Amino acid sequence: MQDKLSELKSILAEVSDLNRAGAVLSWDQQTYMPRAGAEARGQQMGTLGKIAHEKFTDEKVGKFLDELKDAYHPESDEFALIKVTRRDYEKQTRVPADFVVEQAQVTAAAHEGWVAARSKSDFSIFEPHLEKVMDLTRRYIDFFPKADHPYDTLLDDYEPGMKTAEVKAIFAELRKKQVRLIQAIAEQTQVDDSFLHLKFSEVKQRAFGEKVITAFGFDTNKNRLDKAPHPFCTSFSVNDVRITTRYNEKFLNPALFGSMHETGHALYDGGINPSYDRTPLANGASLGVHESQSRMWENLVGRSFPFWEHFYPDLQKIFPSQFSDVKLRDFYKAINKVEPSLIRVEADEATYNMHIMLRLEIEIAMVENTVALKDLPDLWNARMKEYLGVVPPDDAQGVLQDIHWSFGGLGYFSTYALGNLISAQLWEKINSEITDLSTHIREGRFDSLLGWLHANIHVHGRKYEPQELIQKVTGSRLTPAPYLRYLENKFKDVYGL
Amino acid sequence: MQDKLSELKSILAEVSDLNRAGAVLSWDQQTYMPRAGAEARGQQMGTLGKIAHEKFTDEKVGKFLDELKDAYHPESDEFALIKVTRRDYEKQTRVPADFVVEQAQVTAAAHEGWVAARSKSDFSIFEPHLEKVMDLTRRYIDFFPKADHPYDTLLDDYEPGMKTAEVKAIFAELRKKQVRLIQAIAEQTQVDDSFLHLKFSEVKQRAFGEKVITAFGFDTNKNRLDKAPHPFCTSFSVNDVRITTRYNEKFLNPALFGSMHETGHALYDGGINPSYDRTPLANGASLGVHESQSRMWENLVGRSFPFWEHFYPDLQKIFPSQFSDVKLRDFYKAINKVEPSLIRVEADEATYNMHIMLRLEIEIAMVENTVALKDLPDLWNARMKEYLGVVPPDDAQGVLQDIHWSFGGLGYFSTYALGNLISAQLWEKINSEITDLSTHIREGRFDSLLGWLHANIHVHGRKYEPQELIQKVTGSRLTPAPYLRYLENKFKDVYGL
Repeated sequence: MQDKLSELKSILAEVSDLNRAGAVLSWDQQTYMPRAGAEARGQQMGTLGKIAHEKFTDEKVGKFLDELKDAYHPESDEFALIKVTRRDYEKQTRVPADFVVEQAQVTAAAHEGWVAARSKSDFSIFEPHLEKVMDLTRRYIDFFPKADHPYDTLLDDYEPGMKTAEVKAIFAELRKKQVRLIQAIAEQTQVDDSFLHLKFSEVKQRAFGEKVITAFGFDTNKNRLDKAPHPFCTSFSVNDVRITTRYNEKFLNPALFGSMHETGHALYDGGINPSYDRTPLANGASLGVHESQSRMWENLVGRSFPFWEHFYPDLQKIFPSQFSDVKLRDFYKAINKVEPSLIRVEADEATYNMHIMLRLEIEIAMVENTVALKDLPDLWNARMKEYLGVVPPDDAQGVLQDIHWSFGGLGYFSTYALGNLISAQLWEKINSEITDLSTHIREGRFDSLLGWLHANIHVHGRKYEPQELIQKVTGSRLTPAPYLRYLENKFKDVYGL
Repeated sequence: MQDKLSELKSILAEVSDLNRAGAVLSWDQQTYMPRAGAEARGQQMGTLGKIAHEKFTDEKVGKFLDELKDAYHPESDEFALIKVTRRDYEKQTRVPADFVVEQAQVTAAAHEGWVAARSKSDFSIFEPHLEKVMDLTRRYIDFFPKADHPYDTLLDDYEPGMKTAEVKAIFAELRKKQVRLIQAIAEQTQVDDSFLHLKFSEVKQRAFGEKVITAFGFDTNKNRLDKAPHPFCTSFSVNDVRITTRYNEKFLNPALFGSMHETGHALYDGGINPSYDRTPLANGASLGVHESQSRMWENLVGRSFPFWEHFYPDLQKIFPSQFSDVKLRDFYKAINKVEPSLIRVEADEATYNMHIMLRLEIEIAMVENTVALKDLPDLWNARMKEYLGVVPPDDAQGVLQDIHWSFGGLGYFSTYALGNLISAQLWEKINSEITDLSTHIREGRFDSLLGWLHANIHVHGRKYEPQELIQKVTGSRLTPAPYLRYLENKFKDVYGL
C-alpha cells in the first residue's frame, strides 16, 4: 500500500507543480508582464494546463485510487487525500478533452464579447456568446449523474456538497430580513463619508495598508503585495503566498479594505498543513470557506470599532489634513455607511448579499431555461428595483457588470454570500472561546484570532468538506442566523436603529 | 512530410513552453520571490525540466528527425530546424537520465560547497566537490564520440563547432599582444576615475540608465528592467524579454554599463524571427555570438567617445555635483581606465581576456588530468602574476571567485572572450557598411546599428552555426585581428601610446 501511495503522490506532486507553475505565470501576467507578452503567455499556460490534465486523468491515477480506497482510517490524512483526489478525478475524467478545448474557445470569444458589450453598454453584443456558454453549461451538467436540481452540479464545483434547495432556503430567510434592515436604515439620518473621498497618495495608502496587514500576520518572508488591475490572492506553496491590490487616490477604501480582504485569503493559504503541499489537499475547503476568511479580516475585524480604536490615531498621523478634524466615531460610521448601489463589488455589508441573491435567481432561471436571454436586462433591472430600490441606467452598470458568465462561472456567485454567513458563524464561536478578543483587537493584537483560525480552519486544507468543517467547528451546519444578528447589532450601533 | 513536420513542431512547442515557463519561474526567483518560497520553487522548476526532457527525448522525436532529414532545401528554415533539433536531440539522448539526476545532486552540493569555501576563502572546502564535478565531466565526455581533444566536447556545448586547438591558437595570438599592450599602458600616466566613485542615488542611476537603453531600442511594451542580485537577461518569447541589474550607490559603472550589456542580449533575443518562436531555433547562435551583442552595446557603443558626446550633457544634468567640473574627455578616459585587477567581472577591456585565458588553460589541464586539484590555487596565482602582475591575497579573490565550476560549466568561460572578438569583427564590417555610424551615435541615433544587427545577426536565431554566421556576415572565420586593432586604437587614444 505504501508503495502505491507514494507512486500516486509523486504523480500528484508533478500535477501540483505544473498547476502552481501556471499560477506563477498567471500572477506575472497580471502584475509585471509587458503587454506584448500576452500571446506567448497564453500558449505557455495552455500547455501547462493540458499536461497537468493529461497526467491527472491518466488511468494509473484511477487505478491507485481504487486500490487505496479502503486502505486508511477514515480520520487519517491519507484517507482524506484519496477521497479528495477521487472527487477531482471524477470531475476531470467525466468531461471529455474535446469539450474542454471547445469550452476554452467559446469562453475566450465570450470574454472578448463581454468586454466589447460592456464598453458599449449593449447586452445584445454579449447575448449570442452567452447563448453558447449556456449551451456548454447544459452539456457540462449532462456529463454528471442527475442531481436533485441541474444547478446542483454547478454549485458543487465551487461549494462541494451544497444544494440548490439549501441555498434557496438560506437566501429566502436572508432576503426578507435584509430588505427590512435596508429599509429601516434608509429611514435614518444618512452618514457623511465625504472625508473618505479626498486625495490619498498611493505611497501613504501603501504604508498604512502594510502596517495593518503586517499586524494581521502578513510576512514578507513568505508573502508579497503587488499592484494589479484586479485584486487577487494566489499561492505557490504554503511558503509563498501573494496578494495584489489597486490604489484609487480619490477614495481610501478600495485598497485598504481590499488588502485586508486578500490578506484573509493569504493567511488561509499560508496556514495549510505543510505536509499537504503538492497534493490536492493543499487548498481551501471551498470558495465559500475561503471567502469567510477574507470577509472576516476585512469586515468583522477591519470594519469593527475596536480595530479603529487602535489604528485610527495612526491613520490620522499619516493623513492629518484629511482626518485630524474627524472623530473616531464618525470615521467608523463612514466606513460602515449603507447605501443601496448598482455595483456588487462596491456594495456595503448590508446590501451585498442582495446583489448575490438576484444573480442566483437569474442563474437558476437560465439553467432551467425559464427566461429568454434577451429578457435578462429587464429582469435584472426589475429585481434591482425590488431588492435595492435602484435601477441601472444602462447595461454596463447592470447585467453586464460581472465577468463570471463570460468564463462560464455559473454557480460561483453564491460563494460570496455564503462566505459572509460562514464568517459570522465562525465569529460567534471564536468570541465564545476567546472571550477577550475585542480587547486584543483594541490593542492591535491579532495572534489569538489567527492562532484559532490556523488551528481550526486553515491547517485542515481540503481534508473536510465545507459543511463537515463548519459542523465540526461550530456544532451546526451553515445557518444565516449569526450573520443576521451581526448585521442587526452593527447597524443598530451605526444608525441607532 | 507536412504532417510530420507539424507533429514534430507541436512537440517542440510544448517543450519550448515548458522551458520558458521554467525561465519565468527562475526570473521570479531572482527578482521577486519571497525567501521562504525557494524549496517549492526548486521542486516546480525540477518538474518542468524533467517533463521537458522526457518529451524532447521521446523516440517519436528521433523518428520524425530521421524521416524529415532530407525533406527540405538546405537553405530553408525547415532544414535548419531539423538540423538544430537533431543536434540538441543527440546531446540530450546520449546522456542517460540517471546521470542527469546524479549530476543535479553533485552540482547542488558543489554549489553549497563553493559558497562555503568562498565565504571562508578556503579552497580545500571546495576541492572534494570539484573532484566529483571533474569525475562527472570526464564521464560526460565519454558519452560522446571521441573528438580531437576531450575538451572539444565541452566547448561544443557552448560554442558549437569550436575546437580546443582553434581557441588555443586564437588565445596564443591575443596573449602575446595583450600582455604587451597592458605593459605599455602601465608605463603611462595613470587615469583619474575618482569621480566615478562618488555617491550616485539609485533613482537617478535608473533614470539615466533607462534613457540610454531606451535609445538603444529597449521597449517597455516588450521589455522589462528589474533589480536582481546578479544581472541577467531572459526571454519568454520574442515579445517578452527581460533584463535585470543591480545598483551600487558608490560607483556609477556597474548598473550603467551592466544595463547596456544586458540590453545587448535583450535586443538579440527580441530580434529573432518570430516564426521561430516555440522551436529550438528561437535562441542565439551561441553564447559567444550572444556575448558579442552585449559587449558591442556595452563597450563599442557605450564606452565610445561619440556616444558620450551625445549623452554626457544629460549625465551632467542628472549628477551636477559629481560631473559639472569634469570635462568630457576626462570622463571618457575614466570609463576606459585600464588597471590589472583580481576579479574577472570587474576587469576592463584591455585586461579582461587575460582572465579568460588563465581559466581556459587551467580547465584544459583539469580535463587532461595534468594538474592536481589541490595545486589549483598556486597555479592560479602564478598565472595571475605572469599575465597581469597582480597576485590574489586569498582564494576568494582568486581561484574561488567564479561560480561556473560548481555547476560543472567547464567550457563556458571562453565564450566571454570569443564574444569580445566577434563584437570587434562585426564592428569593422558594420562600419564599412554604415560609414557614418559614428555620426549617428554622436546624434544619439541607434536605429541604423540595430537595424543592421537585426537583419544580419538577430533574425537568424540558431539557423546558422556561429562560425558559419560570422563567415557569412564578415567574409571570414573568427579572427582576433579586429579586436586587437580596436584595443590598440582605443588605448592609443586614451593613453596616448
